[in-house]
Amino acid sequence: MSDIEILNKIPQVLKNLKEVNPLTQCITNYVTVNDVANALLAIGASPLMSEEAKEQKDIVNIDNGLVINIGTLTKSQIEGMYEALDEADNIYKPILLDPVGAGASSLRTNTALFMLKNYNITVVRGNMSEIKILAKEYNIEIENNEIVKGVDVAKEDIISKDNIKVNGKIVKEFAKKTNAIVMASGPIDIISDGEDVYSIVETLL
Amino acid sequence: MSDIEILNKIPQVLKNLKEVNPLTQCITNYVTVNDVANALLAIGASPLMSEEAKEQKDIVNIDNGLVINIGTLTKSQIEGMYEALDEADNIYKPILLDPVGAGASSLRTNTALFMLKNYNITVVRGNMSEIKILAKEYNIEIENNEIVKGVDVAKEDIISKDNIKVNGKIVKEFAKKTNAIVMASGPIDIISDGEDVYSIVETLL
Amino acid sequence: MSDIEILNKIPQVLKNLKEVNPLTQCITNYVTVNDVANALLAIGASPLMSEEAKEQKDIVNIDNGLVINIGTLTKSQIEGMYEALDEADNIYKPILLDPVGAGASSLRTNTALFMLKNYNITVVRGNMSEIKILAKEYNIEIENNEIVKGVDVAKEDIISKDNIKVNGKIVKEFAKKTNAIVMASGPIDIISDGEDVYSIVETLL
Repeated sequence: MSDIEILNKIPQVLKNLKEVNPLTQCITNYVTVNDVANALLAIGASPLMSEEAKEQKDIVNIDNGLVINIGTLTKSQIEGMYEALDEADNIYKPILLDPVGAGASSLRTNTALFMLKNYNITVVRGNMSEIKILAKEYNIEIENNEIVKGVDVAKEDIISKDNIKVNGKIVKEFAKKTNAIVMASGPIDIISDGEDVYSIVETLL
Repeated sequence: MSDIEILNKIPQVLKNLKEVNPLTQCITNYVTVNDVANALLAIGASPLMSEEAKEQKDIVNIDNGLVINIGTLTKSQIEGMYEALDEADNIYKPILLDPVGAGASSLRTNTALFMLKNYNITVVRGNMSEIKILAKEYNIEIENNEIVKGVDVAKEDIISKDNIKVNGKIVKEFAKKTNAIVMASGPIDIISDGEDVYSIVETLL
Repeated sequence: MSDIEILNKIPQVLKNLKEVNPLTQCITNYVTVNDVANALLAIGASPLMSEEAKEQKDIVNIDNGLVINIGTLTKSQIEGMYEALDEADNIYKPILLDPVGAGASSLRTNTALFMLKNYNITVVRGNMSEIKILAKEYNIEIENNEIVKGVDVAKEDIISKDNIKVNGKIVKEFAKKTNAIVMASGPIDIISDGEDVYSIVETLL
């Protein structure tokens, strides 16, 4: 599809979203959780935050999709996440994984990798440093790998016109190997389903 | 009391609130917790958020009231809630229960019901779907019961001029059976102590 | 240093801060966590919130400093805090302790005291009630000790021109005995390293 064709589809997609009003179950960090709930409401979705393992089966069965964000990962959240993923995978609910801080601790890196390898993740959204850390584990060739600093993207990993081709290739290969749609966000966003690669450049808007 | 008599009392109630500056202990969800703290400060109360079971006895003894909100219920919160309720009930502190998502999972429904049946809850505040789910367990007759969708009220349960009589009766009976003041909130709010039933219609304001 | 000399240094300190962009690991309460993250970003630091014990060693090794705030203390947070403190102390990372609600529960008072007595805390920041509660345990003489009400400063403990000398002495002695920089905040702030005592009066600004 051409850029214009894609842009022309956006109003219809947003309209559909408001009509479906998808109940979106989020197991997410407690730093931005209020913003996440308000953002979901703003685009026409209905947020439901729940992390207790004991209610995941019930919740996943009524939701329209599951968001897993590991930004303030705890042992008890991990239990809840696996319960939710088991059920979501089983009944084919879409799953989005945001591997916040992958690379900052082995707990985060390993948890994100375990999820990618054991569940059908529909969408992975991360900054380019997080994507590279995870892509490396899939034997995707990464040059000049920067050390992740906390939950922020490393300076050299910020997507720019200079590195967009190299990063686009990583995102595409990672999408192919994980069988997920991969979104690397930054000043320029890169999105791929393993076949096509798109970028969103701010100047378009 | 007439509407006008009630409205005339509001300034004095708000003045009293600011003078007493009640310390309000909240075991609440982490989505809106910041808003809850700021709302309490704005009306002249003093918020204290604490969920650890080990400190509930100390905290309840210095507070002026306890708020239990099950919006992001976890096992460890439930432990804290029961410790707080044991003490609050024992020393006659007012207790408000907000059964967020009752009906969305059996954990939430059952936890809310257990609290209602085993403690002297002073006030229950919920949307009309949550109130109906809980009222049903008290053998209150409910017609056309909608399935709860997440933590939002079901469309057919939104309080309107068309259903206010039916819903008012449910709220009143539920208040009588639980011996609590029940507030069902929506575009129109319904409040009852089991004897009288009031509604707050936006056009009044 | 004179007031003017100190004020003149502020622009350079803020410039250095933006250049270093310190990764600041926070184990903090979930009420103000979003504000804390945004405040850190606003002054040029980089926030990382993490409380899971299992990742503290990794996180402390990449951070530039550790913030411990006990405003919504839980058992699992305490585990994470001690793991983080063990590592931070071991590798000489600066540690800030905010003993929110010390005095409101024995869990909070005892946790804050344990940290002060067993780790090299670099900075303690509290309101004057919290500082007095903790100072008392170091056998610092406190007159007219007010009972703490929740997480707010007691009215009689609010730092003012009338009590600044008495409170300044407490802050200084507490700083000397804990070997920490102590900041008591209020309408007037008092800061001491155990040798010098400074106050920040709003009228200066």
